[in-house]
Amino acid sequence: MPPLGEPQMTQGPRIDPPRLNEPYLLTPGPLTTSYATKEAMMRDWGSWDGDFRAMTAEMRKRLLALLGPGSEAFDCVPIQGSGSYCVEAMLGSFVPRDGKVLVLANGAYGLRAAKTMEYLGRDFHLLDKGDYLPPRGAEVSAILEADPAITHVLAIHCETSSGILNPVEEISAATYAAGRELLIDSMSAFGALGLRPWEIRYEAMVSSANKCIEGVPGFGFVIARKEALQRAAGNSHSLSLDVEAQWAHMEKTGQWRFTPPTHVVAAFLEALRQHEAEGGVAGRGARYARNRDVMVEGMRELGFETLLAERWLSPIIVTFFCPADEKFVFDRFYELMKAKGFIIYPGKLTVVESFRIGCIGQMDEHVMRQVVRAAKETLAEMGVASAAPPAAALEERAKLAA
Amino acid sequence: MPPLGEPQMTQGPRIDPPRLNEPYLLTPGPLTTSYATKEAMMRDWGSWDGDFRAMTAEMRKRLLALLGPGSEAFDCVPIQGSGSYCVEAMLGSFVPRDGKVLVLANGAYGLRAAKTMEYLGRDFHLLDKGDYLPPRGAEVSAILEADPAITHVLAIHCETSSGILNPVEEISAATYAAGRELLIDSMSAFGALGLRPWEIRYEAMVSSANKCIEGVPGFGFVIARKEALQRAAGNSHSLSLDVEAQWAHMEKTGQWRFTPPTHVVAAFLEALRQHEAEGGVAGRGARYARNRDVMVEGMRELGFETLLAERWLSPIIVTFFCPADEKFVFDRFYELMKAKGFIIYPGKLTVVESFRIGCIGQMDEHVMRQVVRAAKETLAEMGVASAAPPAAALEERAKLAA
Repeated sequence: MPPLGEPQMTQGPRIDPPRLNEPYLLTPGPLTTSYATKEAMMRDWGSWDGDFRAMTAEMRKRLLALLGPGSEAFDCVPIQGSGSYCVEAMLGSFVPRDGKVLVLANGAYGLRAAKTMEYLGRDFHLLDKGDYLPPRGAEVSAILEADPAITHVLAIHCETSSGILNPVEEISAATYAAGRELLIDSMSAFGALGLRPWEIRYEAMVSSANKCIEGVPGFGFVIARKEALQRAAGNSHSLSLDVEAQWAHMEKTGQWRFTPPTHVVAAFLEALRQHEAEGGVAGRGARYARNRDVMVEGMRELGFETLLAERWLSPIIVTFFCPADEKFVFDRFYELMKAKGFIIYPGKLTVVESFRIGCIGQMDEHVMRQVVRAAKETLAEMGVASAAPPAAALEERAKLAA
Repeated sequence: MPPLGEPQMTQGPRIDPPRLNEPYLLTPGPLTTSYATKEAMMRDWGSWDGDFRAMTAEMRKRLLALLGPGSEAFDCVPIQGSGSYCVEAMLGSFVPRDGKVLVLANGAYGLRAAKTMEYLGRDFHLLDKGDYLPPRGAEVSAILEADPAITHVLAIHCETSSGILNPVEEISAATYAAGRELLIDSMSAFGALGLRPWEIRYEAMVSSANKCIEGVPGFGFVIARKEALQRAAGNSHSLSLDVEAQWAHMEKTGQWRFTPPTHVVAAFLEALRQHEAEGGVAGRGARYARNRDVMVEGMRELGFETLLAERWLSPIIVTFFCPADEKFVFDRFYELMKAKGFIIYPGKLTVVESFRIGCIGQMDEHVMRQVVRAAKETLAEMGVASAAPPAAALEERAKLAA
């Protein structure tokens, strides 16, 4: 690795810094977007007008194309609201009222899906693996064999609570071997990691505008098999979140059922064009992986330790243990990092103190080196001599290795 | 009225035209917003960060202040998604599962509320007045007296299907005289028309960012009595649309439960500041009323007729009958008006052909005169000799006068 210092031209794209004096968002989204993406919001669109309908059609087509071969069997349905709205819409629309879902949880988003099922009043079985342990294919097989009432499995692709990349391939294999159907929350992964239908089988997945495609927040989308969309009619508990109704209306009229976030859609379309120009999923994923590698290597050199071993580290966001040194106080670390131009993210581990640094958004390895340098300076300002975590953190981590 | 021609300085504010070569949106929203409002979207905000929490707090405070005296009893809860999401959130959160709603409908939005109740699986009574006839206080009284099971009344403030301003004051009086509670969909009216708690009683109302406050679309908000918010716990059918849960979380943490549309919120805050600078609800309402008066007068001079008599005409959007002349084809009229820089809106009447022209957004009377001139030129281009409506339209209109 080159020494920390001025940004250096090595491999990978060179990303323009934000034009305004604003911090980088090293978070799981909303994230730092390009100037051109935001600039696409500088005009007003009539949501009924033909120009906007054409934008919606292009957006849906571009999203479907990200699946690659086999995408003809799928369709894309945008849904207004946040990512969690899309997860609720997917569960409410694809799980029949007498269905039962195996919810695979290892963090906040899996638990939120279980809570959504409680609101829906539909049956579910929660496999709660705690803060970060991955749900494995063999576990899924055993639960499905023991409970024939289960019709669907819900998996979180990248659980940003810890940053773990869950083994969705083996979960999919176990699900379909047992004759059940898979729904995937790929909120923070889609666009940087593949969900190619010829590699992994699923009925539907959801993601959001303000994640790896680098749009701004305001809506998400469901990508589902057309056959599953047809079967979904009449299932939804909610008019607003009825995926099948939105799909049927959009197919018929080219319009969203209710007012779309027109500016956010315009930004997203611009972001999709940039995504294509960067080389699509492969190009975007490569930049993020390089971001992660450079950042993790630098942080480890400072003495920080990651929660997860390499195998489970996503290129989306990484959890670090807080240093054992009592001079380390997260709120102060956060503010000092922000003053240097970097907004990081608090941790979500329940057992030990942690924080997170995201790898996604309009940032490259040069920025990641600046992040590491800022962390180094911040430790010095706080008088933290060592970034080493407490023994309890390493004991916790050993559970995953075991 | 001054002759149509070059814009003239008369009364009222002078609004800057859009800077890009884009048409005015003479629609019920999304609408034409100011350049400064869109410019507020040119940076990225971390949704967890203190700066954004402060923006959310300021927005809620400013919205509450629009109520005037008595606002202390209320609180403001923003909800991600479109306006219809907010209506669903209000119905799902404030109507108990064993409650029953009298839905007052005279257009698409009242009927949509009834459909929402069907999805919720909660009891309701629909008073359907057809395309535009207003639900009156005496009717509400009679229905409530006949059906003691009804707990809530839902009224549409301005029904943009026809543009009618419904008599919410007499509906409120009838509702509370019968000991029931009022919920108001003030989507397209709030910010230009008052909903002052000392003038009209209600438990909760909803509106949206992209209406009379002139923000861009992406979220809406509920303004409700704190006491009603407290009672709402546990009612909601939906995690995403649970108003009480959003309120409780926001009160505790200053954050939205799920990712907010950060850029849209930034734009809305800027729009709220401009709203205040224009003189608040009174100033905004006055400009829109003047827009309506100038536009309606000009259109009538061309021979067009409005569906509604003066008493029911809102300053939001106006329905005109399509001319009887067979050379008038709405799609052609729409495209020719668009080519002149004005996007109008199709009508929603089921009995006769109609179209709508909106009065809201960043437009003043000078723009409205240009709209009338464009309509005049368009009629000439189409070879329409008279803009007079068919006899059936005038017969239809006579029903309202009766």
